[in-house]
Amino acid sequence: MNHQQLFENIVSKRSFLCIGLDSETGRIPAALHTSDDPVFEFNRRIIDATHRYAVAYKPNVAFYECNGIGGWKSLGSTLDYIKKNYPEILVIADAKRGDIGNTSKMYAREFFENMAFDAITVAPYMGEDSVTPFLSHKDKWVILLALTSNSGADDFQYHVENGTRLFEKVLSASQKWGSINNMMYVVGATRAEMLKDIRRIVPDHFLLVPGVGAQGGSLEEVSRYGMTDRCGLLVNSSRAIIFADNSENFDKTAALKAAEIQAEMERYLSGRGLI
Amino acid sequence: MNHQQLFENIVSKRSFLCIGLDSETGRIPAALHTSDDPVFEFNRRIIDATHRYAVAYKPNVAFYECNGIGGWKSLGSTLDYIKKNYPEILVIADAKRGDIGNTSKMYAREFFENMAFDAITVAPYMGEDSVTPFLSHKDKWVILLALTSNSGADDFQYHVENGTRLFEKVLSASQKWGSINNMMYVVGATRAEMLKDIRRIVPDHFLLVPGVGAQGGSLEEVSRYGMTDRCGLLVNSSRAIIFADNSENFDKTAALKAAEIQAEMERYLSGRGLI
Repeated sequence: MNHQQLFENIVSKRSFLCIGLDSETGRIPAALHTSDDPVFEFNRRIIDATHRYAVAYKPNVAFYECNGIGGWKSLGSTLDYIKKNYPEILVIADAKRGDIGNTSKMYAREFFENMAFDAITVAPYMGEDSVTPFLSHKDKWVILLALTSNSGADDFQYHVENGTRLFEKVLSASQKWGSINNMMYVVGATRAEMLKDIRRIVPDHFLLVPGVGAQGGSLEEVSRYGMTDRCGLLVNSSRAIIFADNSENFDKTAALKAAEIQAEMERYLSGRGLI
Repeated sequence: MNHQQLFENIVSKRSFLCIGLDSETGRIPAALHTSDDPVFEFNRRIIDATHRYAVAYKPNVAFYECNGIGGWKSLGSTLDYIKKNYPEILVIADAKRGDIGNTSKMYAREFFENMAFDAITVAPYMGEDSVTPFLSHKDKWVILLALTSNSGADDFQYHVENGTRLFEKVLSASQKWGSINNMMYVVGATRAEMLKDIRRIVPDHFLLVPGVGAQGGSLEEVSRYGMTDRCGLLVNSSRAIIFADNSENFDKTAALKAAEIQAEMERYLSGRGLI
């Protein structure tokens, strides 16, 4: 999937919603715990209920890896289920990997060849050769951390050299490594006002924006400061959708929450004249 | 294992060698490929042949993860084998993880609770709350990336604010998060001269130093600039030991290579009056 195809999916679904499948075992409704694979069963029902409102799903790999081999099976089953039933949806491995060149190549092989993820989040600290092995896979995306939504973002991401903050240097340096068709950036919604500065550096790239909902970011502000004439935004919501209801009707409630967000997104897309 | 115990192991073995178990399937001698688990069989023979020369083993998780569920089994078997047979040896998951607080907690659970690793490498880009969940586990270590050995290290790690380079800020800021008993830093041997500057900021912490051997770093220089009165160094060698020989005698050759490095390390420890 390239930049234009992703935009067309956004237009078609009238949504730029990414749903985070951070499916922590301890938070899954009790009724599912008798299933062979409660995490997959939870995800399957969330996906069936919400797919019409989403253009991307983003399982955070940590929530699967912490269940060992069973967790990797849940992750693989979830990915296969989406690919088989909703092939138009981008699936992002939120893995935040990154290592020296020959090692990043191994991670790329796992997520893009053995598993059929469309995109992976990558940490930039180790620089170019830690990122480019992920970019050599056709039709796959790197989503590079730039400005994250957590409190620790303040520790290093604002380190400033001659007026250029570290996250800005990440944005500018990495543009030479890929293109708008295979690279996006993580920019936290809790710093929506920064999107103005960020759009000066990356006017056209898609941004993956976490932090709306549970972390307090505003979808209206993100859209105002970050939207381009090809949308250019994937806004993620995880817990506010998937854990909105702990009852047996969790999937119906998740669909309602996703639909609410989609309706708000539709207004912003329409206001911008994109639909 | 704390700082003092690690130093005592170094004195006892007259070595500060960490052996990197970057056991890429395609580079394992053909004779092992008939085994049920060639990667584990390779590691087992390497470990049995080299354990007397090493104070640490460091499997890079990428080389296991890229084999899917089978790879995680190989990694688990390798860890269990070391813990059962050579319990004095520190085992490091070279995983370079790091995510927002509630997510890093999941990674910590996997590597420190489900698996019995003693230490994990962590990427610093996301700051304090991405690192501290790993530090709340008793007797476990975080090894934070500071100055890495790859070419991409130049891209961001030297970003300088008021004379403080990013890797120096990582070193100074993170000292508030842990202590010399639960935090080490990765400093590449290819930048040995930088160890003088680094020792001004972290005079006592252990440093994990990759890049000796295949990547061209000098053990003599690393020891001269980096050694403290409690050694303070774990120097890693991976490919130069484990892939020194592709024949059926690979383990004997690995032992010879490890013994050579240990002998050189013994000279530096002795020269410093530590043994």
